[in-house]
Amino acid sequence: MKDAKLVVKSESHQNTIVHLSDHVAIGGQKIVIIGGPCTVESLTQMETVAQHLQFAPVQALRGGVYKPRTSPYAFQGMGLEGLEILAEVRKRYEMPIVTEVMAISQIEEIAACADMLQIGSRNMQNFDLLKAIGQANKPVLLKRGLASTIEEFVMAAEYIMSYGNPNVVLCERGIRSFDPYTRNVLDLGAVVALKQITHLPVIVDPSHAAGKRELIADLSRGAIACGADGLIIECHPEPDKSVSDARQALTLDDMVNLVRSVKPVAEAIGRQVYEIQRPQLAIA
Amino acid sequence: MKDAKLVVKSESHQNTIVHLSDHVAIGGQKIVIIGGPCTVESLTQMETVAQHLQFAPVQALRGGVYKPRTSPYAFQGMGLEGLEILAEVRKRYEMPIVTEVMAISQIEEIAACADMLQIGSRNMQNFDLLKAIGQANKPVLLKRGLASTIEEFVMAAEYIMSYGNPNVVLCERGIRSFDPYTRNVLDLGAVVALKQITHLPVIVDPSHAAGKRELIADLSRGAIACGADGLIIECHPEPDKSVSDARQALTLDDMVNLVRSVKPVAEAIGRQVYEIQRPQLAIA
Amino acid sequence: MKDAKLVVKSESHQNTIVHLSDHVAIGGQKIVIIGGPCTVESLTQMETVAQHLQFAPVQALRGGVYKPRTSPYAFQGMGLEGLEILAEVRKRYEMPIVTEVMAISQIEEIAACADMLQIGSRNMQNFDLLKAIGQANKPVLLKRGLASTIEEFVMAAEYIMSYGNPNVVLCERGIRSFDPYTRNVLDLGAVVALKQITHLPVIVDPSHAAGKRELIADLSRGAIACGADGLIIECHPEPDKSVSDARQALTLDDMVNLVRSVKPVAEAIGRQVYEIQRPQLAIA
Amino acid sequence: MKDAKLVVKSESHQNTIVHLSDHVAIGGQKIVIIGGPCTVESLTQMETVAQHLQFAPVQALRGGVYKPRTSPYAFQGMGLEGLEILAEVRKRYEMPIVTEVMAISQIEEIAACADMLQIGSRNMQNFDLLKAIGQANKPVLLKRGLASTIEEFVMAAEYIMSYGNPNVVLCERGIRSFDPYTRNVLDLGAVVALKQITHLPVIVDPSHAAGKRELIADLSRGAIACGADGLIIECHPEPDKSVSDARQALTLDDMVNLVRSVKPVAEAIGRQVYEIQRPQLAIA
Repeated sequence: MKDAKLVVKSESHQNTIVHLSDHVAIGGQKIVIIGGPCTVESLTQMETVAQHLQFAPVQALRGGVYKPRTSPYAFQGMGLEGLEILAEVRKRYEMPIVTEVMAISQIEEIAACADMLQIGSRNMQNFDLLKAIGQANKPVLLKRGLASTIEEFVMAAEYIMSYGNPNVVLCERGIRSFDPYTRNVLDLGAVVALKQITHLPVIVDPSHAAGKRELIADLSRGAIACGADGLIIECHPEPDKSVSDARQALTLDDMVNLVRSVKPVAEAIGRQVYEIQRPQLAIA
Repeated sequence: MKDAKLVVKSESHQNTIVHLSDHVAIGGQKIVIIGGPCTVESLTQMETVAQHLQFAPVQALRGGVYKPRTSPYAFQGMGLEGLEILAEVRKRYEMPIVTEVMAISQIEEIAACADMLQIGSRNMQNFDLLKAIGQANKPVLLKRGLASTIEEFVMAAEYIMSYGNPNVVLCERGIRSFDPYTRNVLDLGAVVALKQITHLPVIVDPSHAAGKRELIADLSRGAIACGADGLIIECHPEPDKSVSDARQALTLDDMVNLVRSVKPVAEAIGRQVYEIQRPQLAIA
Repeated sequence: MKDAKLVVKSESHQNTIVHLSDHVAIGGQKIVIIGGPCTVESLTQMETVAQHLQFAPVQALRGGVYKPRTSPYAFQGMGLEGLEILAEVRKRYEMPIVTEVMAISQIEEIAACADMLQIGSRNMQNFDLLKAIGQANKPVLLKRGLASTIEEFVMAAEYIMSYGNPNVVLCERGIRSFDPYTRNVLDLGAVVALKQITHLPVIVDPSHAAGKRELIADLSRGAIACGADGLIIECHPEPDKSVSDARQALTLDDMVNLVRSVKPVAEAIGRQVYEIQRPQLAIA
Repeated sequence: MKDAKLVVKSESHQNTIVHLSDHVAIGGQKIVIIGGPCTVESLTQMETVAQHLQFAPVQALRGGVYKPRTSPYAFQGMGLEGLEILAEVRKRYEMPIVTEVMAISQIEEIAACADMLQIGSRNMQNFDLLKAIGQANKPVLLKRGLASTIEEFVMAAEYIMSYGNPNVVLCERGIRSFDPYTRNVLDLGAVVALKQITHLPVIVDPSHAAGKRELIADLSRGAIACGADGLIIECHPEPDKSVSDARQALTLDDMVNLVRSVKPVAEAIGRQVYEIQRPQLAIA
């Protein structure tokens, strides 16, 4: 990893904190939890999610408006209309928004209404997108590729940083393996390694790793105990009606329960969670 | 898994508890920690280990006397002489012993002085050995094969149970994958799945999964937070002098620190650890 | 694969032929061989390659001018200057050119001087790029992602076809696995499967799969015997001086020998190779 | 591989030839083809197979009497009764027999009526079995483990040779990977590598790798073109009635066709196949 000049720690306590808003920061003492549906489907859906999750509390909302789908005939996301929904929910609930950027041409419009730009697994080595996002003025959530080595993951972050954007959060989301029981294999050893190698925050997406909702709560607590700085979890008002990834979405009640169960685990390793406080967030 | 009549839970609260001694049981409320060197090297080595670990406290000792080595020219273990060392340490320190059985011909002699018979990863589908161990009157620690699916792992336990031995503990120890940074990938999703599918205890071996000692403590805490019933961890009085797997062995002091750090994590999810109490164990 | 309406065969003899020039077509009776360096380095280099390979004969030239590199500090390719070199060599030697497109913004300029646009492994699911290339008026060489299933590969081709471009050639180039001896594992079972499932031509890149030049000739003959429609192979006038992937580049003499050794294998399964004939190619 | 003193070539032309009978040898100029069912089911079944295959010609018969099955409730093979069937067929048709040994206790009885002892994938690192087979006086067919590296495979052969048995044939049979379309991934790069590294014969089992009968003929021709010394292929008089692995068994007619199609491929790389000649084999 010696080539990763900007991403690798220069001393063991070096620690980057990435701010999503005045009140929410990833990489500090507090564990950050990001929740929301796989796909933005309607304003009603997103409002229902925000209303429930703000008191979990969840610190930021996720929801895709441009969706990378294996089939060209699958729903590709609401696009601009979805972005307007995200902007509206962001304003009403004062919660930061995380959403995926699939193409350079989308960066400007998404940056205008989101607080964090997600690079999905399939684009982890889309180097032109990495270079462009490196010039954006927003925090980046970089998801590990399905078969990316730790070194390749670190070097992808180095692309973003070397083009000028220091606010990169790494996200382990499961790697491809041979067992059909889980969708992917959550690699918590990589989380531990990344926290030792880099100064960047590392969060975990147990939803895509497990692919089955009944595995997610235990994996979430495991991730926090391993040292992850946060979680990004899929949930939906009516999981079985989700337009995508229904099998792995939690109900909103299960999401609230999960968030609450994380608190004692965080404290067991000397960290804290965010407390509920309304008005919770004043977004810049 | 419908074929795994004996291993699969018939109702969600079914829970098998496997007793290693009058005082040590795996699968109940208390987390069990097994520690010791990869390989038994001398009585002095094992006594040093036992003296330190009893006050961690660690509940059982591990140490190989028959070693599966990739090369026929590598040290193959002390054999019978090593078994005598294990028997002596077991008696002096009243700690149960876990050691690997590589062949049917070794079962009787190992069962005479160990409290738990380990089937290693390479033998997870050595079906004749599974059948023979199914007829032994000792608890079994069954390690997952390097590329075994969850279903194959469950069916290997079914072999043992169907031949008459109900005292099987499953052990996740990392699966083979593409990343050279860690030796294997610890699959905690499998641990969560196995706890949901089967009524058997499930423990985790972070040492073989990580292959690097600096990753082990965090993975251990993660495993407990995920719901594992215990840990089996390699440690050595002088790790760099270990005859095998030196890179992944903890010092005895690091082992004690790790064990203590597990307590608050166990409590965070409503479980407990064993407390130090001398004389700790009265072995049957 | 039922969603892959355009890519899947409707009857067993359906067979698409993709034309690179008036004289070179992939998917017919004749095996097509594409050769050249990993990276375009100079006009002299490319001319040396073309002079040698035209009499192998090799039917088309490869050479990257936009290079996907793991590190942002590695040479990223000659860009436009490299394209001019490719255009010049194409004209002088009347050989079709295959080169990689990494971004939508490059399509127009590359399409102006290349005969086939390559989508690299890392971009196999860069869906916006697939959609854009689907609207380009040039044949596409779609390389399989490092951990892409056969179904995902087929669906990526479906993206391109569904956006209007019927001239897609699939390329198996090795998948990521656990063995460090070879760089990747060449999956010839996928080649056989793709020929049965789809009507598209399928070629094989043994260079990236093997990662070691001494394995390439045998794998090339194996690929043809399995039914591949062609090969794309890296070679260099001075392999050890190659700016990238030096370890897997053949010398030009070895490349000529390899091409000649393919002929009897092709004939053994009822196919042919292209014969040497000057002027070999009249490019449209 | 420097530890593999006995298996690694000392000079590039070193080449071990393993004799199955006076007339059949693996590792020479001639390609050897071994065929037969997954499991011995009856004398009638094995006679039907032998009658057809002797004129393909196939040089040796395979058939399991001790079967490694994932489930303890699946048919475990005919055992001794199956061995008697193999002995009878061997005598009547003068064809060498290859069958699997799963346990040390079976070696003597199997060696009494088989010409080659197979170590299956699951037992590739059953070191006690390797040591025992190293002391047997019969050729050994060592199958690669599902997730074994090339180095581990070579070292497993080294175990056998270092215990005294020089007649080891390596068999690539597919490795475990992420794609559900094929059962395993046939790693022909490993075949090429093993031929370069070791002096031992290397054969290929496309049946277990592909897991689908329609892929087997193409993969067989590919394996021979890559340099494999032979093939071991599953076939059955009525594939859909096979008690195991039905989906990958060829009909006997398809097997004959496959064998005949191999001849021109072998000749294309300068090798030959065995010709039909009755009495074909005089077994010692």
